[in-house]
Amino acid sequence: MSEVKLIDIKETIFAENVVSAKTVRDRLSEHGVFMLNLMASPGAGKTSLILKTIDILSDKYRMAVIEGDIESTIDSEKISAKGIPAVQLRTGGACHLDATMVGAALDMLDLSNLDIIIVENIGNLVCPASFDLGARKNVLITSVPEGDDKVLKYPIMFSACEVLIVNKIDYLPDPGFDIEALKTRVSNLNPSMTVLELSCRNDDGIEAWTDWLKHQVNDVKLSVQ
Amino acid sequence: MSEVKLIDIKETIFAENVVSAKTVRDRLSEHGVFMLNLMASPGAGKTSLILKTIDILSDKYRMAVIEGDIESTIDSEKISAKGIPAVQLRTGGACHLDATMVGAALDMLDLSNLDIIIVENIGNLVCPASFDLGARKNVLITSVPEGDDKVLKYPIMFSACEVLIVNKIDYLPDPGFDIEALKTRVSNLNPSMTVLELSCRNDDGIEAWTDWLKHQVNDVKLSVQ
Repeated sequence: MSEVKLIDIKETIFAENVVSAKTVRDRLSEHGVFMLNLMASPGAGKTSLILKTIDILSDKYRMAVIEGDIESTIDSEKISAKGIPAVQLRTGGACHLDATMVGAALDMLDLSNLDIIIVENIGNLVCPASFDLGARKNVLITSVPEGDDKVLKYPIMFSACEVLIVNKIDYLPDPGFDIEALKTRVSNLNPSMTVLELSCRNDDGIEAWTDWLKHQVNDVKLSVQ
Repeated sequence: MSEVKLIDIKETIFAENVVSAKTVRDRLSEHGVFMLNLMASPGAGKTSLILKTIDILSDKYRMAVIEGDIESTIDSEKISAKGIPAVQLRTGGACHLDATMVGAALDMLDLSNLDIIIVENIGNLVCPASFDLGARKNVLITSVPEGDDKVLKYPIMFSACEVLIVNKIDYLPDPGFDIEALKTRVSNLNPSMTVLELSCRNDDGIEAWTDWLKHQVNDVKLSVQ
């Protein structure tokens, strides 16, 4: 067994984002809009979950989506095709959204005519975790094929979110994924995190997600009254 | 159908990395060491591929691994347990490695006693793509459960790499993954990219990977003589 050599590297965190996030949060509160910051690895199912949520809830709630993408507009086109307002933030290489970008996107939406805004962040388990967008809740998706150890490797992200969606449960059983091991790791790091298991492919568990979302929207409406 | 609204956001790229990358590359050339920069999403199988490669090649070649991780040291401990020198670059939140960090890691290795260094970059399809580490080859892993559209969404990464490993082919067939569609997209963006399909779980296709790697090592040795 060889010795592990360790080098620590520091990072600067941008504090001006805190100010922009407060501005976003205040604007949303004023209009009684619930905004969600949805984060995940590439391919974990962010767009699939948004499309599924639109299918289930768009007849009850007025929805909009803010799409973060480095380059393409394919995701916002899919959302737009469902008749839901979509603002695309094309970052041109930048690895996360920040609250100033989200503020610019809000300028393009009619907040007085919305109940829910879902922000699809850049597919990345690192950088987005350090930037509060002013959302009321941060939701993380992990998926079965990624393995059950992501909480150990991306603890900042798993600490920054209130809800963990375990997507692609239709892949279970999978020798690389032990749901109980994952839950124990989550509970050790972030005990108040809500864990929802679902499949956007076959709809298993999807109702618990939309119920959670309805509850959040009602909470915001009550706090405005 | 709703109109997509588009906001472009600019990014600064750090040019000093180019200088550090050249220094790293020169040091490696001098010692005839082949270094590989391995990139992928979280959970695509970087560590699994490294461990498998060590199992197959470590009796023929002198290997070392530079492990980029935000927080934990679990990957480098796995490598170390196989008797392979491992240098852990713990970035403390930073989302990519750069050539200066890799240079610091090389200081901790005996280059005159190595044939292959594999750098495991941070699990991220965005930021690492913009930072040349001074490696001779950049290799990207994508995996079947991530879907076949990643090349459209992370084109900078898919352009920056010479080899694409399609991992987890043991999940095929999968309704969300059309290998021919992926190959066409890759070929449109980066026609010279080599695509290798394999499974670290059942070893299918793994020999084409280790053959490619042996060929690279021999190329470096020939260029030193």
